[in-house]
Amino acid sequence: MFGRTYFNGEVTEAAIGEKVTLKGWVQKRRDLGGVIFIDLRDRSGVVQVVFNPDISADALATAEKIRNEYVLDIQGTVIKRDEANFNPNVTTGTVEVQAENVTILNEAKTPPFIIDERTDVSEDIRLKYRYLDLRRPAMFETLKMRNKTTKAIRDYLDGEGFLDIETPILTKSTPEGARDYLVPSRVHEGEFYALPQSPQIFKQLLMVSGFERYYQIARCFRDEDLRADRQPEFTQIDIETSFMSQEDIIKTAENMMAKVMKDVKGLDVTLPFPRMTYNEAMSRYGSDKPDTRFGMELKDVSEIVKDSDFKVFTGAVASGGQVKAIVVKDGNADYSRKDIDGLAEFAAIYGAKGLAWLKVEEDGVKGPIAKFFAEDQEQLVSALEAEVGDLILFVADKKGIVADALGALRIKLGKERGLIDQSKFNFLWVTDWPLLEYDEEEGRYYAAHHPFTMPFREDMDKLESDPASVRAQAYDLVLNGYELGGGSLRIFERDVQEKMFKVLGFSEEEANAQFGFLMDAFEYGTPPHGGIALGLDRMVMLLAGRTNLRDTIAFPKTASASDLLVDAPSTVSDKQLAELNLRLAALKK
Amino acid sequence: MFGRTYFNGEVTEAAIGEKVTLKGWVQKRRDLGGVIFIDLRDRSGVVQVVFNPDISADALATAEKIRNEYVLDIQGTVIKRDEANFNPNVTTGTVEVQAENVTILNEAKTPPFIIDERTDVSEDIRLKYRYLDLRRPAMFETLKMRNKTTKAIRDYLDGEGFLDIETPILTKSTPEGARDYLVPSRVHEGEFYALPQSPQIFKQLLMVSGFERYYQIARCFRDEDLRADRQPEFTQIDIETSFMSQEDIIKTAENMMAKVMKDVKGLDVTLPFPRMTYNEAMSRYGSDKPDTRFGMELKDVSEIVKDSDFKVFTGAVASGGQVKAIVVKDGNADYSRKDIDGLAEFAAIYGAKGLAWLKVEEDGVKGPIAKFFAEDQEQLVSALEAEVGDLILFVADKKGIVADALGALRIKLGKERGLIDQSKFNFLWVTDWPLLEYDEEEGRYYAAHHPFTMPFREDMDKLESDPASVRAQAYDLVLNGYELGGGSLRIFERDVQEKMFKVLGFSEEEANAQFGFLMDAFEYGTPPHGGIALGLDRMVMLLAGRTNLRDTIAFPKTASASDLLVDAPSTVSDKQLAELNLRLAALKK
Repeated sequence: MFGRTYFNGEVTEAAIGEKVTLKGWVQKRRDLGGVIFIDLRDRSGVVQVVFNPDISADALATAEKIRNEYVLDIQGTVIKRDEANFNPNVTTGTVEVQAENVTILNEAKTPPFIIDERTDVSEDIRLKYRYLDLRRPAMFETLKMRNKTTKAIRDYLDGEGFLDIETPILTKSTPEGARDYLVPSRVHEGEFYALPQSPQIFKQLLMVSGFERYYQIARCFRDEDLRADRQPEFTQIDIETSFMSQEDIIKTAENMMAKVMKDVKGLDVTLPFPRMTYNEAMSRYGSDKPDTRFGMELKDVSEIVKDSDFKVFTGAVASGGQVKAIVVKDGNADYSRKDIDGLAEFAAIYGAKGLAWLKVEEDGVKGPIAKFFAEDQEQLVSALEAEVGDLILFVADKKGIVADALGALRIKLGKERGLIDQSKFNFLWVTDWPLLEYDEEEGRYYAAHHPFTMPFREDMDKLESDPASVRAQAYDLVLNGYELGGGSLRIFERDVQEKMFKVLGFSEEEANAQFGFLMDAFEYGTPPHGGIALGLDRMVMLLAGRTNLRDTIAFPKTASASDLLVDAPSTVSDKQLAELNLRLAALKK
Repeated sequence: MFGRTYFNGEVTEAAIGEKVTLKGWVQKRRDLGGVIFIDLRDRSGVVQVVFNPDISADALATAEKIRNEYVLDIQGTVIKRDEANFNPNVTTGTVEVQAENVTILNEAKTPPFIIDERTDVSEDIRLKYRYLDLRRPAMFETLKMRNKTTKAIRDYLDGEGFLDIETPILTKSTPEGARDYLVPSRVHEGEFYALPQSPQIFKQLLMVSGFERYYQIARCFRDEDLRADRQPEFTQIDIETSFMSQEDIIKTAENMMAKVMKDVKGLDVTLPFPRMTYNEAMSRYGSDKPDTRFGMELKDVSEIVKDSDFKVFTGAVASGGQVKAIVVKDGNADYSRKDIDGLAEFAAIYGAKGLAWLKVEEDGVKGPIAKFFAEDQEQLVSALEAEVGDLILFVADKKGIVADALGALRIKLGKERGLIDQSKFNFLWVTDWPLLEYDEEEGRYYAAHHPFTMPFREDMDKLESDPASVRAQAYDLVLNGYELGGGSLRIFERDVQEKMFKVLGFSEEEANAQFGFLMDAFEYGTPPHGGIALGLDRMVMLLAGRTNLRDTIAFPKTASASDLLVDAPSTVSDKQLAELNLRLAALKK
């Protein structure tokens, strides 16, 4: 215990009568007329210390000077409290320590906010004084949970023979994806390093090297604007394997997550996790990362409404789009026409030009469009499994817009109607992703995951003739509607990789300049390989029941960096500026 | 086992009769007239596979096409080898696999070097084809040992309640120390991030936050020129604690290293490790990181020679310097006058203006300076514990030069005379470091460790009056003459820290601008704290018995980066250049 007898939260009745040395911070101090009580906090909890003039007048005199957050070293004897003073809220609530000696190790100014869960402080202030914010037990517990999560992951992967291998942070820039952070090189004139967006190339090279099972809890970087759910510096659980099938990799990830859930949350999850193809997820939930903790699924009513008199619906179907609906159970009474207008505005963010609706009542469907469905209403209501009292919301548009708008509405309504069981952890695999996405603006295909993803073997011949229909051997792991991460089998043959770059619009020269070293490596006996990468920050956020990603990171980046402390950029010094200029001048050649 | 029955190195006699599926690389192929043998390698080892026309003509036909480093999937039956063909060099040497089916998973060009321990290849070629170099079992084993080392460290620290907390890579520049890598910020116009040389400030802030026990296996960066024993990107085992004494921290590090030695090398080390003050180490070994695996200690003979007629010696002593010697056991016959001239040249690198010597022979000491010691020779020889046949080497100069020159000579001679037991792991603590070092050129003091190191309490009042004499509460851990790392108790009071910055020549404004946030934090209840940081790369190098630091890193940086693969900097694209220019223009404002 190194100089103390107990951590404060561990002083229990078993210690009664013991002389103890304790250390910690003053959480609270009460002066009850000549007898002073303090709650002494350390990372394990608090214990009550009492300064009594009959025990030590010196200690009491020192205690007079003590304020909140002072750092103390205390010697005393553990005694039982009077039963009337038992505190059932803390582990140490039946005992107290009678102080015989106290040393003030350090003083403390009055902190800008009280170190307590219940204090409501703006995030700006919390981040400015992060060292005080982190003193709050909930923050400590979240970071402790992060430690527990990585420990569970490491223990699992180590047991399966995975080797933790570090890959470089100062690395080559490999375009595609987000913007890189750039580090001008001093030694290599006219060149610069990039910080990695993922260890993708390195982990593939390790498979070429025959490592077979690699993992790393790897720091990655994206020079993109801050969002509540995105940090420019983030941590990825990065796994790569050789000779394993998609099934093998999914099984490995599932077993790993089961250990995490057990070790961190004490929960037994059911394996295997449910699965869904990308197409099914989009169709049933309007999302590639469905939150399956509640229903309210999207139902296609195109067939039923396509011959109706409601032009919005018939037009959408006729032009190749669709009409889909979600049913808000017992929503009739809760949503006024004005409320529904609000929902329509929300749907408009996702491109929906309108939000049609029907209320199911005892005597039939009601609402502005009810008249168009006088005849079909029974068929409609029954197809949607709607009941009296329900509200039906329709979007008629192109497939993508219908999915986005109804998918977002579903989540919004699920939350505001309390349909989500917050105690649930619903894992889901989304498989069979499209390999490519077409960017209409740029008129070219992009890799839906990344350009190293292996297409389905049976779709390979459509790579040039019908790229949009090619499926990828890729899989995402979803938890409660958040993408935890994803993986794929990788291309491991030079000719397939070359074909892929061609489809993505790279010239042979460009492909060779940027990825030639990887394709060269493929020619020296590269095994079939694949892997998965999961976001640690988000995983901890979900496990800890937090909603702010920054709460899972000890020192996160914020938009107002200049207010911040140590993770903020600095103003350049004259010497540093001169050096940067030299490097930049070289770059410009 | 995911699609295979065994790893290849684990196919033993217990598997005889089993139908197995194996995967791996062709290590070697021999065609014995119609029967083909291959050694199939994976990361666990090799197993022999035999293609026999009586078993499968198809498999044999495929085997005809197989070359070294092809990747195969093999089905077959494990059989016992004829005793005459037993191979005692591999774990699988008494069995072989009779191939029934073989699939070529990927082909391989002839590699630029044979994948084998014994291949002697230049490091340039090894690094250019790092993915093939890493296929060599010794490289795999070194990186596996690195994984085992970090696992042992994590398991130990986790058991002691240390939390693994990540700190930022994009951070504020905190001058002092080496040159920073700089990352111009896109969002914060005119500012830039620095990559951390250590998580120093963050770990101290975590102590302010009450984490009490933190660790991280942290990537750190120094923009300095490459050396065989230094990488610009390196990994540090970073530990910080609160309320612990120097003794407590040393004990923690010792227990951790004992677990590493046990788990990684199977060795029981004796605790506690020996200790030596900085002054004793410099005096006895001429080094602040003595290799204690052999003797040949430096002996001070100033008192004996100060009144001799040899002006070089008497002059050195008279001007405040000293005369010290090392004894080369049985060195008389081995070192000619010319050899000794060579040693003098070597000593000159360290500033020694000459190297005096004496040979101890039956009839007294011999050599050019023997005449000056006709009378004192017995006293001299006895003080040095020299015997007939020994060679004595003297350096007379300022204390620092004597230590450097004789210290370096001692190591050189220890190596070339085979005095070092390579099987030994000699740990040593060097304590009581000076707090400050005086830079004669710049006429100012520098922090010997870093500006956050706590002085001895009893030396505190000399901080301004006699800075050079102030000792630091700092300790280095040395292994076999290499500095594994070091630590210190930290300053945790604002006034002491301010005084320290003043001694280091910071104005109040500079100190506040650069470290104000830390000193502000000190005012909110900062506990006494301290820690230690050990270099992982070097630790693994010593454990693995390697001499090249780069062999402990999967993808190291090299001087000839342009030859290299993925860890090389890139040439900037037009778009990236434009963006960098914008950032730099902002910096110049």
